[in-house]
Amino acid sequence: MAEPSAFLSDRARGVRQSAVRDVFDLAMTPGVVSLAGGNPWLDDLPLEDLGRVAEGLVARQGHLSLQYGAGQGTPELRDAACTVMAADGIEGADPDLVVVTPGSQAGIDTAARLLGNPGDAVVVEDPTFVGALNTFNTWQLDAVTTPTDEEGLIPAFLRRTLQRLRAEGRRVAFLYTIPSYANPSGALMPAERRDEVARICREEGVLIVEDNPYGQLGFDDAPVPPIAAAHRDQVLYLGTVSKIFAPGVRIGWALVPPVLLREFYLCAESAYICPPVPSQMLATAFLTRFDWQGHVARCAAEYARRCDALVEELEARLDPRVLVTRPAGGFFVWARMPDGVDTAPLMHAAAAEGVVFVPGAAFTPDGGPDPHFRLAFSFVAPEVLREGVRRLAPVLNAAVSGRPG
Amino acid sequence: MAEPSAFLSDRARGVRQSAVRDVFDLAMTPGVVSLAGGNPWLDDLPLEDLGRVAEGLVARQGHLSLQYGAGQGTPELRDAACTVMAADGIEGADPDLVVVTPGSQAGIDTAARLLGNPGDAVVVEDPTFVGALNTFNTWQLDAVTTPTDEEGLIPAFLRRTLQRLRAEGRRVAFLYTIPSYANPSGALMPAERRDEVARICREEGVLIVEDNPYGQLGFDDAPVPPIAAAHRDQVLYLGTVSKIFAPGVRIGWALVPPVLLREFYLCAESAYICPPVPSQMLATAFLTRFDWQGHVARCAAEYARRCDALVEELEARLDPRVLVTRPAGGFFVWARMPDGVDTAPLMHAAAAEGVVFVPGAAFTPDGGPDPHFRLAFSFVAPEVLREGVRRLAPVLNAAVSGRPG
Repeated sequence: MAEPSAFLSDRARGVRQSAVRDVFDLAMTPGVVSLAGGNPWLDDLPLEDLGRVAEGLVARQGHLSLQYGAGQGTPELRDAACTVMAADGIEGADPDLVVVTPGSQAGIDTAARLLGNPGDAVVVEDPTFVGALNTFNTWQLDAVTTPTDEEGLIPAFLRRTLQRLRAEGRRVAFLYTIPSYANPSGALMPAERRDEVARICREEGVLIVEDNPYGQLGFDDAPVPPIAAAHRDQVLYLGTVSKIFAPGVRIGWALVPPVLLREFYLCAESAYICPPVPSQMLATAFLTRFDWQGHVARCAAEYARRCDALVEELEARLDPRVLVTRPAGGFFVWARMPDGVDTAPLMHAAAAEGVVFVPGAAFTPDGGPDPHFRLAFSFVAPEVLREGVRRLAPVLNAAVSGRPG
Repeated sequence: MAEPSAFLSDRARGVRQSAVRDVFDLAMTPGVVSLAGGNPWLDDLPLEDLGRVAEGLVARQGHLSLQYGAGQGTPELRDAACTVMAADGIEGADPDLVVVTPGSQAGIDTAARLLGNPGDAVVVEDPTFVGALNTFNTWQLDAVTTPTDEEGLIPAFLRRTLQRLRAEGRRVAFLYTIPSYANPSGALMPAERRDEVARICREEGVLIVEDNPYGQLGFDDAPVPPIAAAHRDQVLYLGTVSKIFAPGVRIGWALVPPVLLREFYLCAESAYICPPVPSQMLATAFLTRFDWQGHVARCAAEYARRCDALVEELEARLDPRVLVTRPAGGFFVWARMPDGVDTAPLMHAAAAEGVVFVPGAAFTPDGGPDPHFRLAFSFVAPEVLREGVRRLAPVLNAAVSGRPG
């Protein structure tokens, strides 16, 4: 046989075990405080009642739940997804335009399959979700970053990026954006800026893939309506139950512009035939027979409490030259070391002290030296977050002091 | 905005709603006898007991089942997959080389992602599984057919096909094969031929992707060991619970050659992060706490009964110029009209009579006129199968008589 690597596709040869994955492996060590993974808090879920639902959907509806389902998902879940989107601010979504996906990662993957040719540009926020970068990489799409501030994408820069790509004759497959409590930055894009982004993309003829896992998890404020709310025809919108119910079921959905619907679900079926049916039925039950909005409100309050504990402890213990921003929602604190400090090597020093975080390099396409780092507070109790900071602060402070401030 | 089709990738523009899908839509009409879909028979499943399992895994293990899982799948399910593979004839598989997938369609998709560059050839049986063709199409792989007989791939032709592709300077991503009770042909490849196929592929430096959903569903005989059993390093093997337990859970697995393992699971994670966790736990329970092999034996007996009813009725009612082969296992009867008859147009005539089947064109890459057709007996009770044939026979016989025999 040939050399093993000869069997790999060009894309697979380019697949890297990301820093995030290294971190997750480290985070498995007993006693380590993991500020790495964006796992949701599940303690508020009515597990006993959900268990009875699970029993019923197998024992009494097993011929449905255990059999092949429709590629587009069950009508009941597509209806329920519209209810969730209405709470996000997308009024009157048509369930016939909803395609259930096995998690929104699969939605991103299907969007790339549907819209991107190898070598196309995909415009992404700097920084952006590592899982999206991984998917774009396997589709041989070229992730082109555009700058952000604490309100997300900066419209003037976005326009310049798109104009430059057009001038270079590059095809832009789409803009990928997380406008609400972005992963990793936590940025929340205000309504006016969303309209401006939509206008720029319309003028440049670029479709938007809007990923909205965290939109209802604001600490104080009601959700800012997604870009899709007012610009339905130019947005492929991705929703999920992963952060408002449970990621283990792997259930998300896409709200697809009508002209792309048929090709979207055919692409989806080519990848996995249909989403898992028991998961769809359990998610449907949660969204129709339980007070899911009460659950989301309690989750948001718990996340706010955790975020406050983390930020307070960081502010008390970190060198003031480390810039920490308190997000207004979501799962993550995004922070920045002084210029010239790369956080990737610090990951191992921190792990040796019993705490892990994700270095900023993970959230950029080139993965080069980066002074940022991401701390996830969603899954960690406040007192453990504080202990994590007690372990982390000396490592970070030493790195700051080792350099001119 | 641009024309909608401008947004589609080249691959998505090439995605066709296959004849199979047309048929599935027709099959939804009440009163229609569907001989189209390869749905498994689920009546033998212990639904009450499985319901109690489902309750427990949510009510008492919800913090595990509802949370993100490992991309490679749970250790328990990877162990159980090895037990299933041992029953198939693959002894001593290493659970560390097993990657759980959300159905084996996702396994095929990951194999294409891992191994195929756009424009590469993938060698496939003529005919082959329509779902695999769809996946290869979205990866812009060129499915190149090689002839089969009632014992599957014909080694001499396979060698010639691979030699021709090599002479043309084509990269061959892999050979995709279903050696046991193939979909759609029902062919069972004998052990010696499996070794010969493996030897040819080794000589030509071509990896084998072996898809084995039906291997334990022989009507009379024990499973023929998969190609992977004796040629582990040159086969990426795909297993699934879809036909021996339940397709709705969407659980399959890959047994991956060690040199490809890391890239395989990184490619898989880029597509969907992890397989659904409640599904994994339910499948694990079925494979460890229930008499799953007894269930499989009862399923195989029921499929044999259904197959016999279908073949008997076909032989009694069809023009003898229609060639019907009784398979020795699996879900499908594959039949052939006289040369020159295309079965695709007959699908609509049959639907008008209240019966649907899948025309042979669906199982070839070019989808051109084809005299074959596939009848699925797996999901239909014997008396309904007979009624389906009573409706189908006049349509087929008329098409035969309309031409010189």
